[in-house]
Amino acid sequence: MTATAPLFDRIAIIGIGLIGSSLARAVPAYGLARTVVCGDRSEAACAKALELGIVAEATTDLEAAVDGADLVILCTPMGSFAEMGERLAPRLKPGTILTDVGSVKQAVLRDIGPHVPDGVHLIPGHPVAGTEHSGPEAGFASLFNGRWCILTPPTGANADAVEKVAGLWRRCGSNVETMDAAHHDRVLAITSHLPHLIAYTIVGTASDLEETTKSEVIKFSAGGFRDFTRIAASDPVMWRDVFLNNREAVLETLQLFTEDLTALQRAIRWGEGDRLQELFTRTRAIRRGIIDAKQA
Amino acid sequence: MTATAPLFDRIAIIGIGLIGSSLARAVPAYGLARTVVCGDRSEAACAKALELGIVAEATTDLEAAVDGADLVILCTPMGSFAEMGERLAPRLKPGTILTDVGSVKQAVLRDIGPHVPDGVHLIPGHPVAGTEHSGPEAGFASLFNGRWCILTPPTGANADAVEKVAGLWRRCGSNVETMDAAHHDRVLAITSHLPHLIAYTIVGTASDLEETTKSEVIKFSAGGFRDFTRIAASDPVMWRDVFLNNREAVLETLQLFTEDLTALQRAIRWGEGDRLQELFTRTRAIRRGIIDAKQA
Repeated sequence: MTATAPLFDRIAIIGIGLIGSSLARAVPAYGLARTVVCGDRSEAACAKALELGIVAEATTDLEAAVDGADLVILCTPMGSFAEMGERLAPRLKPGTILTDVGSVKQAVLRDIGPHVPDGVHLIPGHPVAGTEHSGPEAGFASLFNGRWCILTPPTGANADAVEKVAGLWRRCGSNVETMDAAHHDRVLAITSHLPHLIAYTIVGTASDLEETTKSEVIKFSAGGFRDFTRIAASDPVMWRDVFLNNREAVLETLQLFTEDLTALQRAIRWGEGDRLQELFTRTRAIRRGIIDAKQA
Repeated sequence: MTATAPLFDRIAIIGIGLIGSSLARAVPAYGLARTVVCGDRSEAACAKALELGIVAEATTDLEAAVDGADLVILCTPMGSFAEMGERLAPRLKPGTILTDVGSVKQAVLRDIGPHVPDGVHLIPGHPVAGTEHSGPEAGFASLFNGRWCILTPPTGANADAVEKVAGLWRRCGSNVETMDAAHHDRVLAITSHLPHLIAYTIVGTASDLEETTKSEVIKFSAGGFRDFTRIAASDPVMWRDVFLNNREAVLETLQLFTEDLTALQRAIRWGEGDRLQELFTRTRAIRRGIIDAKQA
């Protein structure tokens, strides 16, 4: 990998959590840049990143962190993006690329777009990868390997800058797809945001039950529940911000889901076995598609 | 394991799918019986079981399959239990133990109980274990290892018979718990049946979307959706029968879930970030409990 020249000179990662620290580890592993530094509000996170040896410098002074970087990657929760845009974007020199890894893409253009100076290239991105673990210790260089990364460059974005960001993700082993931000937000509402919302809900419902003790819920979780708990253990702040920032698409998708659930509820109440079996047979085919696409 | 004497002389497994074929494989692996045979309506399944060498005999004549067995384990979908009870129970000799692996337990007493002759011991059971795969090829001997098996013996059940069935599951590596059938059905409604219902629903919702193509849903499934598709790939007939046979508990639990989901929907609509974050933080604790209990 390192036989080819690094894509960037100095990458600044803002927010050294699961995704940020995975990217930091990917820098030497896949020859992404000569140097990688990070900025994080948390002193503990900075100290941990230095201790792990995954960044050359780490500072809580975010403005200092982006100084001299030719690529800045925002890896903080989306709720901070407006502030990040306001504080950091004006400091970037012409030619710098500013990207992010947020799970909602229209909000990036809305929150950061207005602060980006002429000559700085804002290329929003979203690696569709993750685990239920958080923090700098949780990252690993191969997290993006074989996964998709979606870029949503605004109209008129610099083609070379788009290609450089795409190249970074490809070196991480990702497949890159480019699409409109609004379409991204609708697709992810169903493939990611709604599943998380539902997992959080059902785990909450279970923990509130009076008759069934928490210990029973835990003991007998192998019957299906445990798969939901894994998703419902994802970072609370990150996910709060996802729902607040993709409200329209999430609520619309949730409405469709609720209608389908009500129809199924009715089928159970009236004993319509054929209807249940038909749906359960149809959903198997989707699983097969995911296995065939090596996303299982 | 085989240093200790087998628990049974001849075990007859009716239905040689995922669970039945895992039990058949467990018989020699854990010294459960001298002989294991199976009965299955499907000629192909019988032929496959013989070809795999996991049973000594296999027949589509279910009455013949139970002849001479001192333990009969029903592993067919629950919708067949009334018929199985009527056909097979009267043929069993006094002292024979009849058990099952169905996911709903009140229905076993209702459907099979009336057909059980004096001296035959009906000890319903439910191993809380499984995968999304089906059929005789899908089984493996260690499936029940480290998992829970719940027994719901009816009032006045023979204590020795209960202990023998518990012993069989313990040899398979399971932890055994005994409880009332009605309580079982309520606990499993939340830990297993509702998660499956919701997974089936969301996968169905996704596959019906017009704007988002099926290929996009598959591509970007790593964002959370793929975990649901695994569950939604479970056996359609088995699950149809679970919902039809645990209707009351499933509908009641579904009602609680729907209320919680509506509250969350409202929090998203009104931008109540604190409320979202509070729930998302609380659900993390449940996950930790499952990991600590080694059920993850």
